[in-house]
Amino acid sequence: ITKNTNVRLSLPAVCIVWQTAMIILFGVFIRYNEESDTHWVEYRKENNLSDIQNDFYFRYPSFQDVHVMIFVGFGFLMTFLQRYSFGAVGFNFLIAAFGLQWALLMQGWFHSLDYTDGKIKIGVENLINADFCVAGCLIAYGAVLGKVSPVQLLVLTLFGITLFAVEEYIILDLIHAKDAGGSMVIHTFGGYYGLSISWMLYRPNLDQSNRLQSSVYHSDVFAMIGTLFLWMFWPSFNSAITDHGDGQHRAAINTYLALASTVLTTVAVSSLFQKHGKLDMVHIQNSTLAGGVAVGTAAEFMLMPYGSLIVGFCCGIISTLGYIFLTPFMEKYLKIQDTCGIHNLHAMPGVIGGIVGAITAAAATESVYGAEGLRNTFDFEGEFADRSTSKQGGHQAAGLCVAICFGVGGGILVGFILRLPIWGDPADDNCFNDEPYWEATPPQDKMSPKSGTINSLNFSLHFVSLKMFCFTSIEHIIIFLNLIFFFFFVKTEFII
Amino acid sequence: ITKNTNVRLSLPAVCIVWQTAMIILFGVFIRYNEESDTHWVEYRKENNLSDIQNDFYFRYPSFQDVHVMIFVGFGFLMTFLQRYSFGAVGFNFLIAAFGLQWALLMQGWFHSLDYTDGKIKIGVENLINADFCVAGCLIAYGAVLGKVSPVQLLVLTLFGITLFAVEEYIILDLIHAKDAGGSMVIHTFGGYYGLSISWMLYRPNLDQSNRLQSSVYHSDVFAMIGTLFLWMFWPSFNSAITDHGDGQHRAAINTYLALASTVLTTVAVSSLFQKHGKLDMVHIQNSTLAGGVAVGTAAEFMLMPYGSLIVGFCCGIISTLGYIFLTPFMEKYLKIQDTCGIHNLHAMPGVIGGIVGAITAAAATESVYGAEGLRNTFDFEGEFADRSTSKQGGHQAAGLCVAICFGVGGGILVGFILRLPIWGDPADDNCFNDEPYWEATPPQDKMSPKSGTINSLNFSLHFVSLKMFCFTSIEHIIIFLNLIFFFFFVKTEFII
Amino acid sequence: ITKNTNVRLSLPAVCIVWQTAMIILFGVFIRYNEESDTHWVEYRKENNLSDIQNDFYFRYPSFQDVHVMIFVGFGFLMTFLQRYSFGAVGFNFLIAAFGLQWALLMQGWFHSLDYTDGKIKIGVENLINADFCVAGCLIAYGAVLGKVSPVQLLVLTLFGITLFAVEEYIILDLIHAKDAGGSMVIHTFGGYYGLSISWMLYRPNLDQSNRLQSSVYHSDVFAMIGTLFLWMFWPSFNSAITDHGDGQHRAAINTYLALASTVLTTVAVSSLFQKHGKLDMVHIQNSTLAGGVAVGTAAEFMLMPYGSLIVGFCCGIISTLGYIFLTPFMEKYLKIQDTCGIHNLHAMPGVIGGIVGAITAAAATESVYGAEGLRNTFDFEGEFADRSTSKQGGHQAAGLCVAICFGVGGGILVGFILRLPIWGDPADDNCFNDEPYWEATPPQDKMSPKSGTINSLNFSLHFVSLKMFCFTSIEHIIIFLNLIFFFFFVKTEFII
Repeated sequence: ITKNTNVRLSLPAVCIVWQTAMIILFGVFIRYNEESDTHWVEYRKENNLSDIQNDFYFRYPSFQDVHVMIFVGFGFLMTFLQRYSFGAVGFNFLIAAFGLQWALLMQGWFHSLDYTDGKIKIGVENLINADFCVAGCLIAYGAVLGKVSPVQLLVLTLFGITLFAVEEYIILDLIHAKDAGGSMVIHTFGGYYGLSISWMLYRPNLDQSNRLQSSVYHSDVFAMIGTLFLWMFWPSFNSAITDHGDGQHRAAINTYLALASTVLTTVAVSSLFQKHGKLDMVHIQNSTLAGGVAVGTAAEFMLMPYGSLIVGFCCGIISTLGYIFLTPFMEKYLKIQDTCGIHNLHAMPGVIGGIVGAITAAAATESVYGAEGLRNTFDFEGEFADRSTSKQGGHQAAGLCVAICFGVGGGILVGFILRLPIWGDPADDNCFNDEPYWEATPPQDKMSPKSGTINSLNFSLHFVSLKMFCFTSIEHIIIFLNLIFFFFFVKTEFII
Repeated sequence: ITKNTNVRLSLPAVCIVWQTAMIILFGVFIRYNEESDTHWVEYRKENNLSDIQNDFYFRYPSFQDVHVMIFVGFGFLMTFLQRYSFGAVGFNFLIAAFGLQWALLMQGWFHSLDYTDGKIKIGVENLINADFCVAGCLIAYGAVLGKVSPVQLLVLTLFGITLFAVEEYIILDLIHAKDAGGSMVIHTFGGYYGLSISWMLYRPNLDQSNRLQSSVYHSDVFAMIGTLFLWMFWPSFNSAITDHGDGQHRAAINTYLALASTVLTTVAVSSLFQKHGKLDMVHIQNSTLAGGVAVGTAAEFMLMPYGSLIVGFCCGIISTLGYIFLTPFMEKYLKIQDTCGIHNLHAMPGVIGGIVGAITAAAATESVYGAEGLRNTFDFEGEFADRSTSKQGGHQAAGLCVAICFGVGGGILVGFILRLPIWGDPADDNCFNDEPYWEATPPQDKMSPKSGTINSLNFSLHFVSLKMFCFTSIEHIIIFLNLIFFFFFVKTEFII
Repeated sequence: ITKNTNVRLSLPAVCIVWQTAMIILFGVFIRYNEESDTHWVEYRKENNLSDIQNDFYFRYPSFQDVHVMIFVGFGFLMTFLQRYSFGAVGFNFLIAAFGLQWALLMQGWFHSLDYTDGKIKIGVENLINADFCVAGCLIAYGAVLGKVSPVQLLVLTLFGITLFAVEEYIILDLIHAKDAGGSMVIHTFGGYYGLSISWMLYRPNLDQSNRLQSSVYHSDVFAMIGTLFLWMFWPSFNSAITDHGDGQHRAAINTYLALASTVLTTVAVSSLFQKHGKLDMVHIQNSTLAGGVAVGTAAEFMLMPYGSLIVGFCCGIISTLGYIFLTPFMEKYLKIQDTCGIHNLHAMPGVIGGIVGAITAAAATESVYGAEGLRNTFDFEGEFADRSTSKQGGHQAAGLCVAICFGVGGGILVGFILRLPIWGDPADDNCFNDEPYWEATPPQDKMSPKSGTINSLNFSLHFVSLKMFCFTSIEHIIIFLNLIFFFFFVKTEFII
């Protein structure tokens, strides 16, 4: 059978309906917190604070770095395929923009709900956490890159964010594990979530798209933009939501060192296993980042600078070996087609990061941390005031298991849904190709005008298409009417 | 007649003369303010401040984000044309670098003049405002992209900055409208300024350059770099000069949400109006940003998170529909050739932003803002202490009208000047082409060395050309002599 | 003789051995300082500080900007060659990642050694200084771009960092010169270091690689990414380690202005000396940055806004003239092949910066700076409490001489080492080519799969190559065993 990749009804419908739902839910639930509300001036005076002590100034620079990682980092890292750059950067953009709204709600219900009025109160820390949450889904996108439709990606994201928020609540709040940089909650979960989905969507005849599953010179350079922005800003990622003061400071230093170490071992292994000692761009683009993943959990602990270097050292080796041996093995024997090799970049290093975190927590002593430092770092307060560091180590390990279970289980569930034949995914011989979803000028043909400024023929065509559209798709009109109705409704309420 | 695109006399002359003028004016007028001067240490102690309360630490991270938007964001957004990437990114660089100097002076005279000594005192906020001012001219550049010479662009910028500073003074100081993110003063003004110039410079035979007025695969990916950096850093743009504390915090949150919402409706409309539901890169590159424009004025108000989503929702739809229907319509019937579609990305969303701002201001109540919050947010102080919010709403609307008038009127005036046949603009069949202004290696020919290291022939040629130049253009020598004289003069003064 | 570019033994060996050495040395020497240690909470209370007064919040945003300059700025600036983009961005990545570790140690011994326990205590300022130190070596890389092997680059970096740290100690500590933005210690040193190495490695037949020593359209656009990120973030570079408060504020303003001015004179001179007044991309990519280099030393002084503009004005002219006349002259008569023209971008402007710094320091008066301001700005404290500004000017000049001597002397020494025939550098007709060191897909051939996911043949080949490798290179096994031993050793210690 030939697959139908026309998403002209499903994609707009999903976008409009979900965005409308977001507006309604935000209207009901989401408000500014005391640091972003105009009442801050009173709050500030009551608590004898200065404006500069608004959380905004502690976290906003890190937030913007994380934001760059999500949109430019992940987006451009996936442009390495020769004819899938639009899909890489464009669909990444779409699902991140949707996901962060849904994440604000899901995480807000678990973490920022004000029980006095039933509202979620948001500030800059919520924005960072929403970006983190989205990162889990973008990792999963890496496994299925080029093989799914944008509608499937939106479904993957909807469920991914939901699962993430639950998993995160269990790990951070119930188990009370620490995971500043998200080795477990983001990378391990996101990695296994994506791999399980890819396993469920196995395509036995994917080699028909072989000609496109490779890079060209310039697409590899574009991918390096993504690599470098991820690499440079990873210290901000791991330190964005750690404790004010030494917590953020230490997490940045540890991540900086781990990443530096990873680059050297990646180059070493890449050269060692290639004929003539040549370097492989795939390794440089991906494995150099593994150290940042693996140091995520322990970055805020007293991992020590040399500890960070050791973590980076090992991960560079393991991740590069993964690309050389494990990815082909998984594809051949386990039927897991992992386009970007997220198992080597996120899943494995994430697990390592969870283990490193558990060991570092278990090894923490009051002599190294200081009494107050130990309490601050591990939040041994309230009901957890009496927890020992060795017990904390065990709980960290438990958190890791939860992340893996949610990833694998959730991925199988969502993969099952995505196998329904209604989502407009491409045929096996049309994967890794922008053509089905993008109005792209073909690479050779420079005659077809595209920017749409002159073309009056095009103009008339659009009117025809508009008319046809209006008659044929009555459902959309109803959506629009609802929308306008809703818009006026909210507007009115909003003015009054 | 054939047009002469040789700018060998005019471009260097304009650059050198204007830069020299800047040095003189800066020497006469511009000094450091109390936060960037070495006397800060005394000022700090007098006012019982800590170093961290220097405005630098409140605004510098946002400033750098804005800086990236101006140079990488605007520059790369315009690289989408297949053979005009040098012009897009290079001329953007040139006019921004000139414009920000002139903006520091113009805005300084209106806003930062110290009447005790007649000097303009600058700090980081002035740098941000200069970047903002430049943004207005870069928006205008988008309308005439590929159809003007660099000298015309410098003239466009000189007048644009001047008009901007006057318009801004009227709107912000005389009318006392608020416009944190510049929906009115930057986007509405810049948009209509550019469109009016483009209307004045109408080229009936522009279709002769049709073959070049389209993108190729890689140029579209380059343009996405611009799109994403604009999109990611827009929260910094809208919050860069708002009040310390909650003002910056809230503006960032509102912008973040409006932009996220815009992405989904842009994708929806783009897919809906394309055959087979394919997405158009032009829409993804541009319309996804409309929400940031439209939320500019109201970003610092209590727009509420759902309010931001609604603004973004509507702008994504309107902007994309603009690209599909309005741009061809304007070109065919109104004789406005708008290369980048700035009407859809800046002018229309800017007007919407002004209206949203007026409504939000008029609807502001003390119960929502708090008494002190209301006073802070709208600066109801001094002569404006008794202004009501409904009156403020009216003044916001008046500000919008001023921005439109300055844009249209100024554009017609400057367009008239730019029609003089002395500026070296390209012929109708040579538009959208880097060839007239750039020493570009032709795409196929890989034989011509360019980096200039080896070529001794080239070397001799340069000396010949130097000699010829010296004899033929006596004016330049005079400029140089003046310059050297001036240099020694200032240097001497500066050492003593 | 044909050269052997196989680095399959040497590159991995150097990477693994050096990274292992780093781990050991970090284990022995490097610890967190009081602001990144968990004891900060006690330190903070003792000194009556707020969390926001942790140095992290003063410097981290600037640090990230500097980080972007090092990896994206320098990396992409060098991608202008048509077939050396992988080497430009990839080797830049490798040597920066190694260099910053070694710099933390070298600079730490000189500047951050805690004599009570013999440990180096690091914080965010050390990270910035490490990035600065690396910049010196990346500048030197610009001179030999395309003509050396990655192993040579690692050797260049090892010695470069070592020389840098000694030179910096002499200039900043012994001579007590000020050099906030590193005009002398970074740019002058790095420039002459690279030029001397290039002189030692002179290739008389380099014109055999002529066909590759040029740019193509897209590679020039990639290079503009590097240019712009360097240009935009240079204010952060020059202000990153200056004094809290007015020092950082003023350095950023001065640099911003100097850079703006440089752009206009670069455009003027580029247009003036080209046939038909066309602009040359090489000048726009490089000379526009010269103002940032030249204002480095004086950025934190009271250079005055117009002073900054004048410095930028002159450097734009001098640097562009350097590209037009000096680079071919140096190549032909001095036998210095300078691929990126670092003499025009770093060495000359660096020297100018040193001179400007000396003059500005000598001209400093208490009436302009204020008594306390003068003391703060020049650190006239401790043994230097009685130094006059004119004496300081002389010491600044002395610092410049030291930088030049270290650059030239060190470059000749290291160049001598790099001439040994063991490093795997390419033959004269194979320079400026990624092919010897990178598994690159050829530009035309789109058939060879590269991302390595499907290829089971490749998979078996890897096993064979693994086996062969194990038998033939016994040394590597020993390294690995040592490594594993060391790993367990440290791990054990680390847990206990």
